[in-house]
Amino acid sequence: MGLTIGVDIGGTKIAAGVVDERGTILETSTVPTPPTADGVIDAIGDAVRDASAEYEVDAVGIGAPGYVDDKRATVLFTPNLTWRHEALKDKVEQRIDLPVVIENDANAAAWGEYKFGVGTGHEDVVCITIGTGLGGGVIIGGRLHRGRFGVAAEFGHIRMVPDGLLCGCGNQGCWEQYASGSALVRYARQRATATPENAAILLGLGDGTPEGVEGKHISEAARRGCPVAVDSFRELARWAGAGLADLASLFDPGAFIVGGGVSDEGDLVLDPIRKSYRRWLVGSRWRPHAEVLAAQLGGKAGMVGVADLARQG
Amino acid sequence: MGLTIGVDIGGTKIAAGVVDERGTILETSTVPTPPTADGVIDAIGDAVRDASAEYEVDAVGIGAPGYVDDKRATVLFTPNLTWRHEALKDKVEQRIDLPVVIENDANAAAWGEYKFGVGTGHEDVVCITIGTGLGGGVIIGGRLHRGRFGVAAEFGHIRMVPDGLLCGCGNQGCWEQYASGSALVRYARQRATATPENAAILLGLGDGTPEGVEGKHISEAARRGCPVAVDSFRELARWAGAGLADLASLFDPGAFIVGGGVSDEGDLVLDPIRKSYRRWLVGSRWRPHAEVLAAQLGGKAGMVGVADLARQG
Amino acid sequence: MGLTIGVDIGGTKIAAGVVDERGTILETSTVPTPPTADGVIDAIGDAVRDASAEYEVDAVGIGAPGYVDDKRATVLFTPNLTWRHEALKDKVEQRIDLPVVIENDANAAAWGEYKFGVGTGHEDVVCITIGTGLGGGVIIGGRLHRGRFGVAAEFGHIRMVPDGLLCGCGNQGCWEQYASGSALVRYARQRATATPENAAILLGLGDGTPEGVEGKHISEAARRGCPVAVDSFRELARWAGAGLADLASLFDPGAFIVGGGVSDEGDLVLDPIRKSYRRWLVGSRWRPHAEVLAAQLGGKAGMVGVADLARQG
Amino acid sequence: MGLTIGVDIGGTKIAAGVVDERGTILETSTVPTPPTADGVIDAIGDAVRDASAEYEVDAVGIGAPGYVDDKRATVLFTPNLTWRHEALKDKVEQRIDLPVVIENDANAAAWGEYKFGVGTGHEDVVCITIGTGLGGGVIIGGRLHRGRFGVAAEFGHIRMVPDGLLCGCGNQGCWEQYASGSALVRYARQRATATPENAAILLGLGDGTPEGVEGKHISEAARRGCPVAVDSFRELARWAGAGLADLASLFDPGAFIVGGGVSDEGDLVLDPIRKSYRRWLVGSRWRPHAEVLAAQLGGKAGMVGVADLARQG
Repeated sequence: MGLTIGVDIGGTKIAAGVVDERGTILETSTVPTPPTADGVIDAIGDAVRDASAEYEVDAVGIGAPGYVDDKRATVLFTPNLTWRHEALKDKVEQRIDLPVVIENDANAAAWGEYKFGVGTGHEDVVCITIGTGLGGGVIIGGRLHRGRFGVAAEFGHIRMVPDGLLCGCGNQGCWEQYASGSALVRYARQRATATPENAAILLGLGDGTPEGVEGKHISEAARRGCPVAVDSFRELARWAGAGLADLASLFDPGAFIVGGGVSDEGDLVLDPIRKSYRRWLVGSRWRPHAEVLAAQLGGKAGMVGVADLARQG
Repeated sequence: MGLTIGVDIGGTKIAAGVVDERGTILETSTVPTPPTADGVIDAIGDAVRDASAEYEVDAVGIGAPGYVDDKRATVLFTPNLTWRHEALKDKVEQRIDLPVVIENDANAAAWGEYKFGVGTGHEDVVCITIGTGLGGGVIIGGRLHRGRFGVAAEFGHIRMVPDGLLCGCGNQGCWEQYASGSALVRYARQRATATPENAAILLGLGDGTPEGVEGKHISEAARRGCPVAVDSFRELARWAGAGLADLASLFDPGAFIVGGGVSDEGDLVLDPIRKSYRRWLVGSRWRPHAEVLAAQLGGKAGMVGVADLARQG
Repeated sequence: MGLTIGVDIGGTKIAAGVVDERGTILETSTVPTPPTADGVIDAIGDAVRDASAEYEVDAVGIGAPGYVDDKRATVLFTPNLTWRHEALKDKVEQRIDLPVVIENDANAAAWGEYKFGVGTGHEDVVCITIGTGLGGGVIIGGRLHRGRFGVAAEFGHIRMVPDGLLCGCGNQGCWEQYASGSALVRYARQRATATPENAAILLGLGDGTPEGVEGKHISEAARRGCPVAVDSFRELARWAGAGLADLASLFDPGAFIVGGGVSDEGDLVLDPIRKSYRRWLVGSRWRPHAEVLAAQLGGKAGMVGVADLARQG
Repeated sequence: MGLTIGVDIGGTKIAAGVVDERGTILETSTVPTPPTADGVIDAIGDAVRDASAEYEVDAVGIGAPGYVDDKRATVLFTPNLTWRHEALKDKVEQRIDLPVVIENDANAAAWGEYKFGVGTGHEDVVCITIGTGLGGGVIIGGRLHRGRFGVAAEFGHIRMVPDGLLCGCGNQGCWEQYASGSALVRYARQRATATPENAAILLGLGDGTPEGVEGKHISEAARRGCPVAVDSFRELARWAGAGLADLASLFDPGAFIVGGGVSDEGDLVLDPIRKSYRRWLVGSRWRPHAEVLAAQLGGKAGMVGVADLARQG
């Protein structure tokens, strides 16, 4: 099989890319993300047609937020959206004349990094994607671990804190509430409110108020040494690393990959994650350690990953 | 391959059993557990020779507490004992003239239940063993998931409570401290101390003091309706079920199996575990549910499991 | 001094009552609560004038939500409203020709119960008011404990769960998030979502959905034995009682008084609170226990309390 | 009244001092602490006789660990010892011919600092004593707040972490387990085990193993910049400050005093405590802040405090 299309459904735009078997993106088309599920499906159709205008493609893979069923056809549930039992595969196939595979977006990104990114050479990899939320993907023996019902590796919703923060999924204390881009912004705002004297750089990058602090300000302020920004990254890293230590107790992979927007910060966030990971790893002195690697493909991981999964059929 | 021996290293006795390929135990030999690692190795040799006196056996499997390496040869670390990098396979092979396979005891029990017990017919199973501590085993696609370094499925030491109870592994808040036989005894003693008026039945079964309460008393008292005993099982079940919900988010198995001494209580403890599991399962209404099954093989699961793993070589 | 007016600022209405020195309310006037602070102040003026039309009154006491300063003049901060350094006393005195005393509303209710309600005969009383939120008041040696800066006894915002639920005050894990009317509704909705089969009675009282569950439904359903409703009250009681045990370690009062809307349920909620309190009381067997009493004055406690505080000047 | 004796019962020695009304110690006598309660009582008698040989004294005050009753006569309960309803006053008065007053040792230290130390000039003070454990004392309006039953201000046993660390009192998650000298040693040992590369200085001061780390090593290593030692103090400070913020919500004092062995480190530990306190103080921007002061009297606070309380009768 030759070229396939990978579709990435983002919060603001939907991107479809023609990808070859080496993971190279030959062409990309983007459209704004409509607010409704039906609108999204139409937009996917448009983006796919657009991207494939000049290429012959054999299949389409779609990385979708939420829980995808074992037939890779239906989005069962999205913790932070209102999609429920959305038959995405059928509806998209009605709009385009190509076989469609649906995959959870974090699974897709994990597969992309495993196949074409930093995971190359490993057989057992656990990947976490720290974006607005926290997603995960697991490769065991060179195969994507989808679980019996298709919904494995939903790391964002394991409980880190009993009676903890409310989560979009309805539970409390989910990992996503403590190790995600949203959590990072919360940490920075809380600290800027409590100790504005340590947040001068950070506050100066926004509108001057804690409420005006956004993710990009925190990254920039951390690079400039702002204590509140640095401390906010450390707090995120503390929770991320502790969770990785749990994942080592569960999956025991050969390597961890940390992707998502937060991984763009590189060692600024990776080093404290590694430190926290070692801090909590059970029997740390007596066992081999999995490496904690930064993802390489950035925002393209999901697109190339899901295109490859579609290629495999 | 025909008969193999499964060895179970318990806190008080070491049992070796000759097991056929259907998981039937033909002969068992037991010796008391010596206090040192070297003594244990000698005792294993004795028990194996004893059990195999009248049978021709092809291999020996040993279920050991702790972290076993990827070569299934060395116990790297035992959270609650002092074993560190103990070359169990080599040392036992020097004493008996048979190939030896070492496996984590909870992995062995999981395999036993999967192959010969309640897990028959499933391909993806997660098993927890609630004994004095809490162990786990995972079967994915009909294969035991050992992890890259051999130490997967160490469920007892995932963190359930940040800054929680001290654990023998050195960390705090490990699941084992909240969902195990030891935890059950602690729950009962704390409640009997705080509200002795609700613990009359329980206290009457021991020496009359909270400190005298043991596991067997709690089971008996719960069957007689003692409020403190029933409530202690519920507390254990609350934590066990919440952990199963996390495991569903991680592994997404087709079935859970709950084994170990606590599972002998049957629905007394299984029903509240199931209830707590449903309570915390993310997206509970929108996804297929894995069943939560009681183990069938009791204390024999580890022996027949590890004998079968040795048979497979 | 003879008659004074007590003013109660509620979420939907402002009530002013003429109260005599025995705590008897002679006349009440109510007006709807305006949305802005200035509107509230005007409305207080109207209500006071209305209530005092036929009585000669000497002073006005106002029970206000939030932190009141040591001069009993200014509302410094309201965790769940936007008032900041609101000079309530001055502004109201400009509208009516009477001396005004401002007091935190939960302090006012505590004083009312101490002086005219169930606290009569005690000298050292700690009162918690479980309404939409959780407020507190402390009487030591027969005097209201206001603290050095006027902001003592803000029980709702002590931290019960590190990294816990977000609170209107900006912190996380505040007691108010676990032991309040709002928490009760959250408990019931979560449980009705996870186990609808146990919530039939509760769901039948509302619109059939978990989101439609309100406080009054939970009370009614609990009285009819609905498992989810009963369990929700127990969860609230678990947290309320654990907090009272902490307050015993801190203040060591002769009696606790539990007031607010939740206390209207009587022993349905008081008994599990008492049980949880005993469960967590340090050294429970070796020390005298403060009684846990249900408030007697219902929604009038604040009005008669603050009227009495105004009488004392 | 002129001179009185203050007795301090420590873990290794009992000290009796003759103290004048200005808090000056004129004479001290010490004896080793016997293991039994009766032995302690005899030893107190000896120390008092010894100290008073050349002075005329009017009364004796004894600072005792644990819960002291409202008659200041009996130790009801000691969380970390086996004393239960020990009639200390009567037994000591039988041995010496002087009136005896018993006071909780942390209350005594609080009174000492209030009257003769850093608390001078304040009327409302909350004192925490961070030694091996964590004790507290409260002065309200210039009077020691003993509570209705004598057992107020037992700060060490308020619950900071639900389901947290086991405490000598029988409960879990007590503040004492997170903000005390014992906690500091635990923090340092855990960190030295997990990241020995950051503990070189600390480990070099002891026997080279994490288990050999003691409190004095941590102080010294922190002064020399050892990352693990500094981080251990920060962790202690994080919990101490969060607890002070709770105490501000409860008592609203004019000043906090931090005493006990840990306060000997001065700003090394006080500054991070202050930072954590501000971080968690509810409505921090809108209210007056109590100062957080370091105790001045060191180990003498309890002796001069209890001598003064005995003087007042």
